[in-house]
Amino acid sequence: MKITRRQALTSFATILGVSCQLKARKESADSLYIRFQKEGKEYYGILESDVVTQIEGDIFGEKKRLDVKHQLNDIKVLSPCSPTKILALAGNYRSHLNDSSPPKKPEVFYKPISALQNPRDPIVLPKEAEEVHYEGELVIVIGQKSRRISVVDAEKSIFGVTCGNDISERIWQNGPQKDVQWWRAKGADTFSPVGPYIASGINYGNLMMKTRLNGQTVQEVSTAELIFDCPTVVSFISQYVTLMPGDLIFTGTSGKTGPLNPGDKVEVEIEGVGVLQNNVISS
Amino acid sequence: MKITRRQALTSFATILGVSCQLKARKESADSLYIRFQKEGKEYYGILESDVVTQIEGDIFGEKKRLDVKHQLNDIKVLSPCSPTKILALAGNYRSHLNDSSPPKKPEVFYKPISALQNPRDPIVLPKEAEEVHYEGELVIVIGQKSRRISVVDAEKSIFGVTCGNDISERIWQNGPQKDVQWWRAKGADTFSPVGPYIASGINYGNLMMKTRLNGQTVQEVSTAELIFDCPTVVSFISQYVTLMPGDLIFTGTSGKTGPLNPGDKVEVEIEGVGVLQNNVISS
Repeated sequence: MKITRRQALTSFATILGVSCQLKARKESADSLYIRFQKEGKEYYGILESDVVTQIEGDIFGEKKRLDVKHQLNDIKVLSPCSPTKILALAGNYRSHLNDSSPPKKPEVFYKPISALQNPRDPIVLPKEAEEVHYEGELVIVIGQKSRRISVVDAEKSIFGVTCGNDISERIWQNGPQKDVQWWRAKGADTFSPVGPYIASGINYGNLMMKTRLNGQTVQEVSTAELIFDCPTVVSFISQYVTLMPGDLIFTGTSGKTGPLNPGDKVEVEIEGVGVLQNNVISS
Repeated sequence: MKITRRQALTSFATILGVSCQLKARKESADSLYIRFQKEGKEYYGILESDVVTQIEGDIFGEKKRLDVKHQLNDIKVLSPCSPTKILALAGNYRSHLNDSSPPKKPEVFYKPISALQNPRDPIVLPKEAEEVHYEGELVIVIGQKSRRISVVDAEKSIFGVTCGNDISERIWQNGPQKDVQWWRAKGADTFSPVGPYIASGINYGNLMMKTRLNGQTVQEVSTAELIFDCPTVVSFISQYVTLMPGDLIFTGTSGKTGPLNPGDKVEVEIEGVGVLQNNVISS
């Protein structure tokens, strides 16, 4: 498995004309960034234990810690940044591919920013939807404007990672009357829960990720199993589409996914990053 | 043709449970809104003859005319607003469908806002691209937050229309190794030229539209030939995806499209709206 992934990476790196380095990094974050609301206003902060230190400025640029602290329980946690766009990967774990052959290049699609949902806010099943699935995923957060960058430079463009749930309506996506493109299958309102924190400085290339449905583990994988790893994905996308600070990239889901029903509680947990929890309701 | 379009509309309106009204409107705009740059700063204005009157405030909300005027020749015209997302329609004119049967519902996809290009700025052919086509289109500009609105209410959500060129790489879109989704085929940088003006208060349901390549007309159609007209498209999208002020919807292209080469000049002209002109360069 590892050899094949490495082969794929090397092959792709060769196409881009760059050398492909797999670096070791730490497995806990340097910082956990959080976006939150208090008394109707929005702020950014850094989470340490259960205390959030408010920060001033641009989390992707100049910033400083303020002398203002909040208890995590006293604030409303929001999706952790304000992207200009959201991209996502199809078929990026072998275990999700069934009998299909693995992709020769990252296969990308868009989710609209109107689909963003905060941690703890509900996933709303559209009344026309028939089969809505969870897809637990590692999400890349871009830190700087990136255009036609190499795989090596892509590591510098990755500000951090967060948890995401790439909610998907399978009938609109794959049914006999399926849509030409996945615009609503992957893009309906509330279909992009993200958060709760952005973990920066973590070894995102080898983290355990679990999805739990009503407390039961339904997906479990290491991000080391990604067919195209994070820097490779960022570099590839940037050859065509300029990435901006705050842009999000869902990196793909593993194994089998299953349906969500009203009343369900779904959690995506990534080691060292956090737990994204959302309840499911009907519209 | 007209009867069939009407049948399609009526059939779709029945699905939504609303009555479908085809209203007559004027064929020239009440106002032509323009976004422009002067001495490094960005402004909105209203164009009358060749004079732009600067406006203050939100073009989609409270605004007032200032006592500041510019000659059109003295400013740089920008894409006419700042959308939070761009949607587009596939197969929305019968003449573009070849032998395929017409869609039963609007078929939607996304273009990223990073693909926006200003009038007069170049369409850049990516070096990896093999066959990049023009697609002249009427583009809807949304004026207010719209969620699950009826076809009748959708008319109030449409602030105006502008010209767009839905630049498309056909090999990535339809080739033997085609991408799973159209993310780069329709979304590469500079693949969404839009402008130069937003025409509000115009009868966008019956306007002549032409695409010219190096001065020769290569597409010509009336927007009355749209399979799903503008309010129907806006209402349908809003059942799933919330639309925001400034969001753009490319409504589809007609007839045959053809390739663009470095040095080409491509223009999309819509009666009463304006002419969107871009030159084509290699990267």
